[in-house]
Amino acid sequence: MSILVVGSIAFDSIATPSGRVENMLGGSATYFSLSASYFTDVRVVAVVGEDFTAEHESVLKRRKIDTRGIEHAKGRTFRWGGQYMENLNEAKTDFTELNVFEKFQPRIPEQYRDSRVLFLGNIHPSLQAAVRLEMGNVSLTGGDTMNFWIQGARNELAETLKQVNILLINDGEAKMLSGERNLLRAANKVLAMGPRALVIKHGEYGATIFFREGAFGIGKHPFRAPALPIDEVKDPTGAGDSFAGGFMGYIASQGEINREVIKRALFYGGVMGSFAVEKFGTERLQSLTREEVDARFQIFRELTHLE
Amino acid sequence: MSILVVGSIAFDSIATPSGRVENMLGGSATYFSLSASYFTDVRVVAVVGEDFTAEHESVLKRRKIDTRGIEHAKGRTFRWGGQYMENLNEAKTDFTELNVFEKFQPRIPEQYRDSRVLFLGNIHPSLQAAVRLEMGNVSLTGGDTMNFWIQGARNELAETLKQVNILLINDGEAKMLSGERNLLRAANKVLAMGPRALVIKHGEYGATIFFREGAFGIGKHPFRAPALPIDEVKDPTGAGDSFAGGFMGYIASQGEINREVIKRALFYGGVMGSFAVEKFGTERLQSLTREEVDARFQIFRELTHLE
Repeated sequence: MSILVVGSIAFDSIATPSGRVENMLGGSATYFSLSASYFTDVRVVAVVGEDFTAEHESVLKRRKIDTRGIEHAKGRTFRWGGQYMENLNEAKTDFTELNVFEKFQPRIPEQYRDSRVLFLGNIHPSLQAAVRLEMGNVSLTGGDTMNFWIQGARNELAETLKQVNILLINDGEAKMLSGERNLLRAANKVLAMGPRALVIKHGEYGATIFFREGAFGIGKHPFRAPALPIDEVKDPTGAGDSFAGGFMGYIASQGEINREVIKRALFYGGVMGSFAVEKFGTERLQSLTREEVDARFQIFRELTHLE
Repeated sequence: MSILVVGSIAFDSIATPSGRVENMLGGSATYFSLSASYFTDVRVVAVVGEDFTAEHESVLKRRKIDTRGIEHAKGRTFRWGGQYMENLNEAKTDFTELNVFEKFQPRIPEQYRDSRVLFLGNIHPSLQAAVRLEMGNVSLTGGDTMNFWIQGARNELAETLKQVNILLINDGEAKMLSGERNLLRAANKVLAMGPRALVIKHGEYGATIFFREGAFGIGKHPFRAPALPIDEVKDPTGAGDSFAGGFMGYIASQGEINREVIKRALFYGGVMGSFAVEKFGTERLQSLTREEVDARFQIFRELTHLE
């Protein structure tokens, strides 16, 4: 099944202990799309400015991503600058230029309307809700959010969460959203807000998926996938979106949801996140093969597999 | 194979968000022994004072732990007081009374000398080294240490590490010991100090075992076991020692080391750690059955198992 993602396209300027890049193609929709493209057809809804060239677009097109939903607006593309210091899980923002993103009103092309799976990337919860409303017929909706919206748009976010079937956030976001420091209690509180399943990403420790009782008819027991210990995280930007792309992309590719599909999806999420951080920006995600993806999936599987 | 553990016996006064206890039986040797006793015969070397009664000793004896190596000295038993605030991974020490532990010189009973597996609990590295030297014929030595020795007795610790086959420490300790913030690089540096394998415990995220090339003839790939998300950690004291007891105890029970044994041992370590934190002190570890242990092992296995 094809998947529709709405999110940001950005030019990122990033410094990490491994180096520095300027104005590199990024954004939640970009990472998500590239990652999901290894599993299924992807359609993007986003906005860019006049500085977004055909060359930038070809990064997506080469991965057969449908870019007809990318709106070209007057002005400059969203820009973000940040640095990761010792703690690679947390970015310090240097600057945020919303530019054309400030007035973004997602428009869904007619040809996208038969999409069965929807992913609401990390944008204002009201925009997420509007897209979800327009795509009333999707069979599965995934979503992401961040501290900024949890603190600054809590009511709107609460409304959106009622429409999200699977929410993907990290430990800190889950704790902030729930007001609970214990992971399991935090998960249960977030699930009570609407999602049937909640993926909590633990950075270098992997990710856990929690279910509401009866969700997807697969029982309530959580499931955990590991992350691969790697010796150098070059650039953690986009790791979460790449995780989401692998996770949602794999589910969409299977056509049905059951416990085994969700379990493998969680592993594929970790796999795509692990590729993303190996190079700056989207470089590593642009040129993978499905064979490389599956080979790493096997490594992840071996990492925790008991006979 | 029976296992000999040297470590501390203590009376702990502990406050956590779940409550408070005073002068409760604890110490690294106590937690380790109780935990390992579900897998194999355990022999303890430790020191206690006159306040350690027959009733305290019966806690160990009821689990068939050999207590002939517990030296009864004049004075009071080692006492520790601490509290866990929001972050349950880190204790704030209120007081430490070394008491009889200050002059502890481990003495190994003649009847213990045929032990094939040795665990050096968290005591001064020089004492660990002395015990290891006396037990020259063991086939496997595990060990633990802590920040206090890493900072305060680095040279002695370096000597001890040459004699330890499997070191079990947590993330913070691995990073402090290696001076590396990246987990994989930290692991490789610690392995270069002597151990053939290194277990790094990640608290609520589980644990990873790293191997030196060729260690135990089982290849270099790391292996990771999860921790179970639980809704209330009553008291994290002793979780690491209980983990070590499950890990080493299971290995000792198998009579040989191969990759599958080590993998299952890592899961059993997590299982025993998860029991330990469910109640204050050693209460939960005193009255388990092997069936309960194995049932939880299956839950841990299901938590990450892909078909």
